[in-house]
Amino acid sequence: MDYFSRQKNTNIRLTLPVVCFVWQIAMIILFGVFIRYDEESDTHWVETKAHENITSDIENDFYFRYPSFQDVHVMIFVGFGFLMTFLKRYSFGAVGFNFLIASFGLQWALLMQGWFHSLDPHTGKIYIGVESLINADFCVAGCLIAYGAVLGKVSPVQLLVMTLFGITLFAVEEYIILNLLHARDAGGSMVIHTFGGYYGLAITWVLYRPNLHQSKRMQGSVYHSDAFAMIGTLFLWMFWPSFNSAITDHGDGQHRAAINTYLCLASTVLTTVAISSLSQKTGKLDMVHIQNSTLAGGVALGTAAEFMISPYGALIVGFFCGIISTMGYIFISPFLEKTLKIQDTCGIHNLHAMPGVIGGIVGAITAAAASESVYGKQGLINTFDFTGDFKDRSVLTQGGYQAAGMCVSIVFGVVGGAIVGSILKLPIWGDPADENCFDDEVYWEVREPESIPPILEYNNHMIHKQQDLSESNFSVEHCES
Amino acid sequence: MDYFSRQKNTNIRLTLPVVCFVWQIAMIILFGVFIRYDEESDTHWVETKAHENITSDIENDFYFRYPSFQDVHVMIFVGFGFLMTFLKRYSFGAVGFNFLIASFGLQWALLMQGWFHSLDPHTGKIYIGVESLINADFCVAGCLIAYGAVLGKVSPVQLLVMTLFGITLFAVEEYIILNLLHARDAGGSMVIHTFGGYYGLAITWVLYRPNLHQSKRMQGSVYHSDAFAMIGTLFLWMFWPSFNSAITDHGDGQHRAAINTYLCLASTVLTTVAISSLSQKTGKLDMVHIQNSTLAGGVALGTAAEFMISPYGALIVGFFCGIISTMGYIFISPFLEKTLKIQDTCGIHNLHAMPGVIGGIVGAITAAAASESVYGKQGLINTFDFTGDFKDRSVLTQGGYQAAGMCVSIVFGVVGGAIVGSILKLPIWGDPADENCFDDEVYWEVREPESIPPILEYNNHMIHKQQDLSESNFSVEHCES
Amino acid sequence: MDYFSRQKNTNIRLTLPVVCFVWQIAMIILFGVFIRYDEESDTHWVETKAHENITSDIENDFYFRYPSFQDVHVMIFVGFGFLMTFLKRYSFGAVGFNFLIASFGLQWALLMQGWFHSLDPHTGKIYIGVESLINADFCVAGCLIAYGAVLGKVSPVQLLVMTLFGITLFAVEEYIILNLLHARDAGGSMVIHTFGGYYGLAITWVLYRPNLHQSKRMQGSVYHSDAFAMIGTLFLWMFWPSFNSAITDHGDGQHRAAINTYLCLASTVLTTVAISSLSQKTGKLDMVHIQNSTLAGGVALGTAAEFMISPYGALIVGFFCGIISTMGYIFISPFLEKTLKIQDTCGIHNLHAMPGVIGGIVGAITAAAASESVYGKQGLINTFDFTGDFKDRSVLTQGGYQAAGMCVSIVFGVVGGAIVGSILKLPIWGDPADENCFDDEVYWEVREPESIPPILEYNNHMIHKQQDLSESNFSVEHCES
Repeated sequence: MDYFSRQKNTNIRLTLPVVCFVWQIAMIILFGVFIRYDEESDTHWVETKAHENITSDIENDFYFRYPSFQDVHVMIFVGFGFLMTFLKRYSFGAVGFNFLIASFGLQWALLMQGWFHSLDPHTGKIYIGVESLINADFCVAGCLIAYGAVLGKVSPVQLLVMTLFGITLFAVEEYIILNLLHARDAGGSMVIHTFGGYYGLAITWVLYRPNLHQSKRMQGSVYHSDAFAMIGTLFLWMFWPSFNSAITDHGDGQHRAAINTYLCLASTVLTTVAISSLSQKTGKLDMVHIQNSTLAGGVALGTAAEFMISPYGALIVGFFCGIISTMGYIFISPFLEKTLKIQDTCGIHNLHAMPGVIGGIVGAITAAAASESVYGKQGLINTFDFTGDFKDRSVLTQGGYQAAGMCVSIVFGVVGGAIVGSILKLPIWGDPADENCFDDEVYWEVREPESIPPILEYNNHMIHKQQDLSESNFSVEHCES
Repeated sequence: MDYFSRQKNTNIRLTLPVVCFVWQIAMIILFGVFIRYDEESDTHWVETKAHENITSDIENDFYFRYPSFQDVHVMIFVGFGFLMTFLKRYSFGAVGFNFLIASFGLQWALLMQGWFHSLDPHTGKIYIGVESLINADFCVAGCLIAYGAVLGKVSPVQLLVMTLFGITLFAVEEYIILNLLHARDAGGSMVIHTFGGYYGLAITWVLYRPNLHQSKRMQGSVYHSDAFAMIGTLFLWMFWPSFNSAITDHGDGQHRAAINTYLCLASTVLTTVAISSLSQKTGKLDMVHIQNSTLAGGVALGTAAEFMISPYGALIVGFFCGIISTMGYIFISPFLEKTLKIQDTCGIHNLHAMPGVIGGIVGAITAAAASESVYGKQGLINTFDFTGDFKDRSVLTQGGYQAAGMCVSIVFGVVGGAIVGSILKLPIWGDPADENCFDDEVYWEVREPESIPPILEYNNHMIHKQQDLSESNFSVEHCES
Repeated sequence: MDYFSRQKNTNIRLTLPVVCFVWQIAMIILFGVFIRYDEESDTHWVETKAHENITSDIENDFYFRYPSFQDVHVMIFVGFGFLMTFLKRYSFGAVGFNFLIASFGLQWALLMQGWFHSLDPHTGKIYIGVESLINADFCVAGCLIAYGAVLGKVSPVQLLVMTLFGITLFAVEEYIILNLLHARDAGGSMVIHTFGGYYGLAITWVLYRPNLHQSKRMQGSVYHSDAFAMIGTLFLWMFWPSFNSAITDHGDGQHRAAINTYLCLASTVLTTVAISSLSQKTGKLDMVHIQNSTLAGGVALGTAAEFMISPYGALIVGFFCGIISTMGYIFISPFLEKTLKIQDTCGIHNLHAMPGVIGGIVGAITAAAASESVYGKQGLINTFDFTGDFKDRSVLTQGGYQAAGMCVSIVFGVVGGAIVGSILKLPIWGDPADENCFDDEVYWEVREPESIPPILEYNNHMIHKQQDLSESNFSVEHCES
């Protein structure tokens, strides 16, 4: 242990349990005060049904959204969790801390989003149903994206703090973008990915570690860790149509969003492979690109998935996202690290921030280009929710507000991240020394002495045999001398 | 091979194929005699629809329950299977035997549950639909829980015998609890987890191996096996809302059960992490706790998930379950092993038995505390199914019957397990010697000689090079002598 | 590097990017010309609903089929992808190339199937919805099956070419079988599995490598690669009920197909285990059988899943498929390789081709044996779609056409595969040398030098220590001489 590691105290035996207990108790109290079942998940639904002439139980929102919810849930816990297991020795931290912060985050998100979006002014209560759960998972996604930037370099306590503030900022920017600006963003290109991306990048910029090269030996992947990461990639990729369609309009809205995302992601895979192959002398593929850039199309279609972007439009978005994201890994990430001092472990800039901005732009353009001839009169109203205060808004104006929304998400990400990063810089959170980054041993019991598989024991056996030989030689020499 | 292993004959080339063939043929015959499609999966449904004025195909029960069924199915095969892969050298046995006994068990469960719950007295047939499949999977879950206690210490033939009796006992106790006592237990805290937990513990108690320490070197995890186990943990955790809501009432019943379970499990994660961190000198986390105790909340909400326990109530249940289950791994499991001679490989006492009992108690209290003001008149009737013979039952009485149900499940588990354990003790089942436990080589072709990955071949190469060196030295010495 | 490997140029830096870019651009153009949203995914659906008196959004086909679609999607990408990761050093190729060709294939399938099945003669457009996506995934499955035969022996460019022609052939044979012959094949025993199986076998027969034994050291599995493959097996096994029911009739059709497949697969597991155990001296199980043959029941019920085969009928089909498929791995695969020069890496003959043919026969017999007393008058018409031109067809005739359909799929597979194999034999596709087969290093950046996990570094450390010893000996000897 050298100077730097002695300085750092990674003992979190006090802070981690205290934070977990206190925050969880706070959640229970706040849920007790504020959160109730909505009318579709309450036993009084039988009365609501009679009152509203609903003839069948199947019209409960549960049956419209629960399958999509479960897919999103898998993306949050298995998708994000396993995607980050690519490091050779940080699988526990990747999956385990992802599990921890998502579990806290979704509770806090139900409260924050509830206060901003669905607080009943008469009762002072927040009523939750399956759509609330999806939105909570979405909110958590923003923070998990940010985790990708600091993966391996922070303590679980820092992650919880980052999540607390991240969810809070998310709920505010979401309120501004979706409610005040009345922008559409069903799959969250702006609200989730752009915000989450810049939030994470700003934090890792503040937490810059000049001596991170000291843990360089831990910073790559091994064969099996890359295979584990593909579990994450594929579950994200496969379920992204559910992500982008989970909270869109019933019927054609969900249907169309799923189709668009399905097509867009397929297109992304081909261009990712093409650029990855081009980047190597002999055309070999790089797992980093396949694991990450293949997902960029889903990010970039987050805003426009429910629009009439048309199938070939979805393919075009995917086409360019695969190229740009892979180029990002090849050219931009090294530049960010060297010049701007942004150490981005998972390359969230290329997978979330940049494609998120593209998604915002695509959404603004597609909205501005919408026409009654394509959408139909009622279709246009439904898709852009031109009702109530917004019933006279034109599609061009809508395009402008979409663009404004994207700027809001960037500002919230950068400014919020910088502030939260400064808080995380305080020397009280138990973060690892530069030379111990990317190593599970810091925060996890790793049982390695017992972990020698038989095949290695065989090696050891041979080594010992040889040692005997060598030692016998030695003794011979001694005899001779 | 020493004395102990010579004593044991693990050759199952006769018994395993015979059991598989005979039992499968028996299943075919019994299915031929008894099992038919129910009216919603029969081609005559078109007539039923007309007769019952059902206007849309979407009202077929398939669309209410199939997504949940698939989630449960994943929990049974991937969830339980991979959760048990944590041992360094028992992944094949964990996933493979889990696969085998679940596949047999679900067939036998369709028959046993059919005879007890849905035998048509006029036709003498059992009519199955998607809900029957879910119930069969549930029934299998009880036996897979029991497998966790004896993991690595029994032969596949023993597991099949254990499953045969386990399913049989399950169907009987389920009939007593759900039909005779008319207790509610949609997610099976009592029927599945308490029964399965004690069934497994009683079996492993009877099968106590005093010399199990001889295979201690195989009894831990390695880095990658812990990562595999997290696949199981996460799929169980994510899909538990589907498990607890799969057979609850259409509409608000399924909706509410999913929300409650979602919240409860999130809360469990935080307290599990807190206690796990507290248990180590430097606050490090233990994968055993993260893999298992994070799931205890889902177990404990099995009975009450469909009740109006309210969101903060679900959080409170999860809060305490995380604490108790993790404490169980730290304090109770060693006590059980040393004092009571219960060797519980996966710690099912802490994950299923104890949280199952908590779930039964929570269910009894919540039922007894139910009121018309909270549930609504019709809501109360629907939730507790106060119809037919039970239409005058009070909620207090219901609470009493819930508690009685829990006792029934414990008794069936303990007594049934003790008897089945005695049967499994017969020296005819091909179980492994004490020193060969937790080792896949006993029942699986493991191709290790060929399995040296390139990196190891490099090591070997160096070893051989050195051997040459050593040998040349040797010859020199010989020359000298 | 010896003579053979010098001959082969595996540099794909030109061909792979060019193929990806050109084909993806072609897709965009063709989608622009031909593909539009269908009426249920278009914003005009609100008008369609009003026009057709549809009262609820839930009657959109999306809600009937989307959960099944997502399950099928998981089978295609995780199921097929991970099933092929069993090789010790080909996980990247298995999952990665599977990902690539499926992503291209589904786009091309939407076009090909659209032209053949749903081109609107008035508008010249193809209208797609969720059922189109399922059919595209099905079409891709045929090509992924074929990939199993040539796994590890071809370049990604060859795979893309194989997929291009495979999808094309698939769409034609599907049109002949389903539309012209009016055979029923909801789960694709004939259309997908028989065609895909023989297509792959014919290709690998043409591409026979007499010196494949030179890469024998790479041709087995290692412990963890077998565990990864079980992820693929289980997701295929669990979701197969969704596969076989995904495009069957709404209501009882989907319900019955799911039940039949669920039962059939359970039965297959038991007989697979039985035969696997019988095949070894001490009754040990072989992971190859468990990974593959347990799935044969799903293949064989592809045609008959929607028929009234009755629950015990499904069990019987599974019973024999487990036996036959496992026997195939034990006896037929070695025979095919030695005598017929068919090198079938994954044994697709035993998992797809043979069970597919069984499925076709089972379908023909079950169709011919259908009766109005079992199906009901309307049920018979609905199940076999005896409407329009086919309204007077008898069940016996239908049985005959089913059998004819199976022959068509075999012919298309064998002839098509032989032709495509000849194209793939051209020396321009960058395939690996015989001694470099089954090795990811050929097409992937594998970061092995950095991948030594700590435990191995310890070994290396010991080796170096010994080297010092040996060298010191050496110097002593030199001194002596």
